[in-house]
Amino acid sequence: MKATIITIGDEILIGQIVDTNSVSIAKHLNNIGITIAEKLSIGDSAEQITHSVERAMQQTDVVVITGGLGPTKDDITKHTLAQMFNSTLSYNTTEGEHIRSLLARRNIPFTELNRSQAMLPECCTVLHNAHGTAPGMWFDTNNGGVVVSLPGVPFEMEHLMEDEVVPRLKERFELKSIVHLTLITRGIPESLLAERIADWEDALPDYMHLAYLPAPNIVRLRLSAYDVERERAESAMRAELSKLDALLGDNILGMEGSTIEQRVHDILTERGQHLAVAESCTGGTIAAKFTAMSGASAYFRAGIVAYSNEAKRDILGVNMADIKRYGAVSEEVALQMAEGARRTTQSDYAIATTGIAGPTGGSDEKPVGTVWMAVATPSGCRAVMRNSGTDRSQIISRASAYAIELLYEELKRA
Amino acid sequence: MKATIITIGDEILIGQIVDTNSVSIAKHLNNIGITIAEKLSIGDSAEQITHSVERAMQQTDVVVITGGLGPTKDDITKHTLAQMFNSTLSYNTTEGEHIRSLLARRNIPFTELNRSQAMLPECCTVLHNAHGTAPGMWFDTNNGGVVVSLPGVPFEMEHLMEDEVVPRLKERFELKSIVHLTLITRGIPESLLAERIADWEDALPDYMHLAYLPAPNIVRLRLSAYDVERERAESAMRAELSKLDALLGDNILGMEGSTIEQRVHDILTERGQHLAVAESCTGGTIAAKFTAMSGASAYFRAGIVAYSNEAKRDILGVNMADIKRYGAVSEEVALQMAEGARRTTQSDYAIATTGIAGPTGGSDEKPVGTVWMAVATPSGCRAVMRNSGTDRSQIISRASAYAIELLYEELKRA
Repeated sequence: MKATIITIGDEILIGQIVDTNSVSIAKHLNNIGITIAEKLSIGDSAEQITHSVERAMQQTDVVVITGGLGPTKDDITKHTLAQMFNSTLSYNTTEGEHIRSLLARRNIPFTELNRSQAMLPECCTVLHNAHGTAPGMWFDTNNGGVVVSLPGVPFEMEHLMEDEVVPRLKERFELKSIVHLTLITRGIPESLLAERIADWEDALPDYMHLAYLPAPNIVRLRLSAYDVERERAESAMRAELSKLDALLGDNILGMEGSTIEQRVHDILTERGQHLAVAESCTGGTIAAKFTAMSGASAYFRAGIVAYSNEAKRDILGVNMADIKRYGAVSEEVALQMAEGARRTTQSDYAIATTGIAGPTGGSDEKPVGTVWMAVATPSGCRAVMRNSGTDRSQIISRASAYAIELLYEELKRA
Repeated sequence: MKATIITIGDEILIGQIVDTNSVSIAKHLNNIGITIAEKLSIGDSAEQITHSVERAMQQTDVVVITGGLGPTKDDITKHTLAQMFNSTLSYNTTEGEHIRSLLARRNIPFTELNRSQAMLPECCTVLHNAHGTAPGMWFDTNNGGVVVSLPGVPFEMEHLMEDEVVPRLKERFELKSIVHLTLITRGIPESLLAERIADWEDALPDYMHLAYLPAPNIVRLRLSAYDVERERAESAMRAELSKLDALLGDNILGMEGSTIEQRVHDILTERGQHLAVAESCTGGTIAAKFTAMSGASAYFRAGIVAYSNEAKRDILGVNMADIKRYGAVSEEVALQMAEGARRTTQSDYAIATTGIAGPTGGSDEKPVGTVWMAVATPSGCRAVMRNSGTDRSQIISRASAYAIELLYEELKRA
């Protein structure tokens, strides 16, 4: 079973936004056994939409479209689809009342333009958008396929995929499974890795596809199988991957899975332990990663973004003389920040970051990218320095990941 | 002049990575006056590559391809293009020596697989990749077009676009300009905004295209013109946008580039005043927004993510009896959090958020999405309640935007 994903909007074509919708849709479809044949981004043009959707309908059974459903003139997806399916628009009372009450809660008047959002093609099944004013639409095509149109606002699209589209697709089609397993290797360049596992790769069953995904110091090996019976395929694939232990040994980092913060979240929740975070250069990013997860309040006590030296002293109890002697970006200060956060909040664990995010503030001794991170635990405290890149956002993002990894290592050891 | 961007790799189709390459390529091409007609992502399949590149060559003059140039078996872009252009591969000594020396610097042996990366189609112009082992390729097509193939590693692609592709395209084609100008409005919903500027929109010259890009509490209005003479078009477009002053007044935040946090950043930096943030439900997101900006350390003293009641009491001095009496999500607690943050950090301003981000924790009286936000200033403190949505990430993002806006209003008034 194959699908095409089409994202509509000039903002994608001119590079004004990064398209994350298609990533999420692809994951949802893969999860239920639907392969993405093609992802396509086009502009808000009736001709392009018609042409692309028609081509997609010929090539694949499922077409998922996002974008172009807003109330303004530049959004033409709904009218174009109605025309394609020879359908007229009529007012849907249920959706109209939903839009009216959504707006009323935010004290926004219900205008003619809002009313137009409840005008929907008669031939489609309306997908109720509980979180926004643009309903989704499900069209059955003449040749047994499905075209789905969803709003481009990411969380609205996300809820519609989960609550409406995925259940309907599962009911509608007899779907087999797709299995992806990704093993992460480290410390071995792609070309050497490929040579070392060449015989193993050649001996893989035909239905298993291997891909190499290189990143700095890491190569991910993804094994994929399409249209299979999940459990049987997964166990056969795990058996193949386990053969790599003998070939790669210490170069294997583990399987790709949940994020590290998710694992930390699970461990702390299960153990009933508490966490605090003291951030300087990462500026709240680590706290935001944890608190983005529902249930974080069970273990996340507090985050302190101690950006100024005074805040480090007053809130975290860092010794000002040490800041003067060693500098704010130093092992000593990182350790005192972590200990201070742990003590102040009476938590079991605390992590701290202090570094130079740039672009200014670097020196020969401590160039931009220098980040000290520390973890305080019930049994002690340790700090490490990691050079975290050259670009401000890259440094903040990498340092956050490194610090959470440091905590994760301690949690595994405890 | 139109282009197609094709990204190759199963990792994009299964949603394993977010495609940022095409965003960067789109920006580069737009900058030199080339419009992106379509962006396409396909798998590592010879048939799909051939079919898609041929279709793109028929529809557009320029085709830029990334991905599939690694040394391993799953990467087939180079062989497929060679076949399409009826060309054989031969060893390129310059590139071979470059690869050998790149690897030697990292103590990696030069293997047969690395050697194969210097095997290049005879008919192409080789684009030297100073930062990696996969050279780029430039093919001239029979009908006067160009097909460019670049590696998928983002910074290698980036350097090749800048150093090799853009200069050659400018030399090769007579290019007109594309101009995008984006005005940011705030505090007015998309549908009301559209009504208020309807007459202005209708009167725009035909060559100017208007798009609405909504985000929490913000709508960006993008005016675009294609195939124009840059300076003349830009000044005409600015003239049109300036007419919006009279229609939108205070709802105009400025031209893109200036987010509300950027405005706050500029004001506080200029006035030499200081800011602190006390966050509960937004969990560090507000602090992260300010600290993402270079120079934030001039005014940003501290952020306190007071997630637990104890942290609210111990770090911010919130009265525990009031938390019990009014609840953690209340006007009283929001005010005390803001005042406490301002006092503790000796800042001029502080903002605070406390709310129910969900999905659990809501009640009839205080449903999920209820967020109290407060701002403490040198001349007093005020709080407002905003219903910030229904979805956890939406609530966090909207509440952050509202709280920063509350501060911005106070700063303008001061």
